Amino acid sequence: MILYLMDLIGVAVFAISGVLVAAHVHMDLLGGFALAALTAIGGGTLRDVLLNRHPIFWIRDARYLWVILAAAALTMVYIAFLPPPGNSLVVADALGLALFAISGAQIAEASGHSFLIVVLMGAMTGTAGGMLRDVMSARVPMIFQQDLYATAAIAGIVAYVILQKLGLPRTVAVSVGVLVILGVRVLAVVWGLHLPRLSRLG
Amino acid sequence: MILYLMDLIGVAVFAISGVLVAAHVHMDLLGGFALAALTAIGGGTLRDVLLNRHPIFWIRDARYLWVILAAAALTMVYIAFLPPPGNSLVVADALGLALFAISGAQIAEASGHSFLIVVLMGAMTGTAGGMLRDVMSARVPMIFQQDLYATAAIAGIVAYVILQKLGLPRTVAVSVGVLVILGVRVLAVVWGLHLPRLSRLG
Amino acid sequence: MILYLMDLIGVAVFAISGVLVAAHVHMDLLGGFALAALTAIGGGTLRDVLLNRHPIFWIRDARYLWVILAAAALTMVYIAFLPPPGNSLVVADALGLALFAISGAQIAEASGHSFLIVVLMGAMTGTAGGMLRDVMSARVPMIFQQDLYATAAIAGIVAYVILQKLGLPRTVAVSVGVLVILGVRVLAVVWGLHLPRLSRLG
Repeated sequence: MILYLMDLIGVAVFAISGVLVAAHVHMDLLGGFALAALTAIGGGTLRDVLLNRHPIFWIRDARYLWVILAAAALTMVYIAFLPPPGNSLVVADALGLALFAISGAQIAEASGHSFLIVVLMGAMTGTAGGMLRDVMSARVPMIFQQDLYATAAIAGIVAYVILQKLGLPRTVAVSVGVLVILGVRVLAVVWGLHLPRLSRLG
Repeated sequence: MILYLMDLIGVAVFAISGVLVAAHVHMDLLGGFALAALTAIGGGTLRDVLLNRHPIFWIRDARYLWVILAAAALTMVYIAFLPPPGNSLVVADALGLALFAISGAQIAEASGHSFLIVVLMGAMTGTAGGMLRDVMSARVPMIFQQDLYATAAIAGIVAYVILQKLGLPRTVAVSVGVLVILGVRVLAVVWGLHLPRLSRLG
Repeated sequence: MILYLMDLIGVAVFAISGVLVAAHVHMDLLGGFALAALTAIGGGTLRDVLLNRHPIFWIRDARYLWVILAAAALTMVYIAFLPPPGNSLVVADALGLALFAISGAQIAEASGHSFLIVVLMGAMTGTAGGMLRDVMSARVPMIFQQDLYATAAIAGIVAYVILQKLGLPRTVAVSVGVLVILGVRVLAVVWGLHLPRLSRLG
């Protein structure tokens, strides 16, 4: 139930991020819907294909697509009248990343996979939609250029797994995991935090 | 049967479009075959993976690969002697888009999926091969830059679904759907039609 | 057994190539691990999804992920102190290409597929990881720009299949296939060999 709600909010915020990027690169209306859908379903689709969960989540339950359509349409109406708040793309993307990373980790965990696979599956579920969005609009994916992107996802998933193992209620573990990802990403952007770059090691 | 023929012609025209792009960016012979194959099988492979149809169409029936090889080789020979007609890339791409969009929609419909999923699956089947082709050759995908691309696909699929629901023979519905996509795309390019851009709304 | 070893070495060298590219484009530490993992598991994941082999190889056996982590970490430590040898990216990529191409071909062959599908599946398994790596770091994929890339893969797979058909031991056929790919790629880069470009045919 909580997982279902997370996925619904996740597709909505990723759809919003897709429209914001589409507007930024001057796509037309339907291109905007296409990029919104791609961003919103990319991560969960990869998760379901890799874990052999059929039918894929948005084929099983059409509500996801209606949520994407609604979120994208509302965003288009909004930006037609008002400029979007400064950091809205980063915030929408961070929220989608957080919700899908923890949802992907939960599903991998429920299938009995080991710690490393839970982390990787969560990270892939959280990041794939945004990667598709960025590659399709000819931008370098955030995960490869921005501050603490993969780091945030992994930190939140690890927090979630540990709290679960410690016996805390799932709701608490999930909430902390999501907040860690959101917090690390937003603070990293605000304060300009970053890990050492590879080429600066030498 | 008609579906099979559509898929065969679809892979052939997408293979042609792959070779044209490969020549445009100065790939070598085998790079051209690789791009032709990627463009031709991309959309149908995505369709089969998402709908869990195994074996994938080109694994089940090797005829597809021979058609791709033949279409790509003939195109290479042609462009070695004659310059390709001006709009050949747009026309080959539009034909592939039309055939695969309607074929993807038919298959989703036959599996009993709802209207929205039929439309989305058709659109993805029609556009994925061309997207792969463009991303791999470092071009912004047509769907995100060109006039009425997603629009054409969706209009044709909607026409096909409505005619089916009205009880017309499948052959008629399929033909109209394909012609709508082809027509919208070609007229949009000729007349420079386009939907409003997202950034111009404000 | 030999197949298992090939896959393990394959993921290791592709992980190394991912870190080298990540350092080249100034990614941070975790971005480097992400690109290493994407490069290392991309081809085999595509192979397993297309052939409907579940669980995917790295989900079935977590050893692959540990090998990737170790190879990526060692490479990061190495390049922190010493500049990598001049052609290390080309060599690591060629080795990964060779090992995964032959492994993909073997698996397709074991499933009883025809010659053309064995070749295509081998080529896709060998090249997909490197393509993902290059697209994600905004480079034109090697397969589409570099000397005898697809050619090397196909030559090695054909050699492997023929030697198998002639009744030679699998170990010999596999070794020759791998060496042909490695040899063709390395010699092509050293001597600047290439197939005719498509646009130069006319």
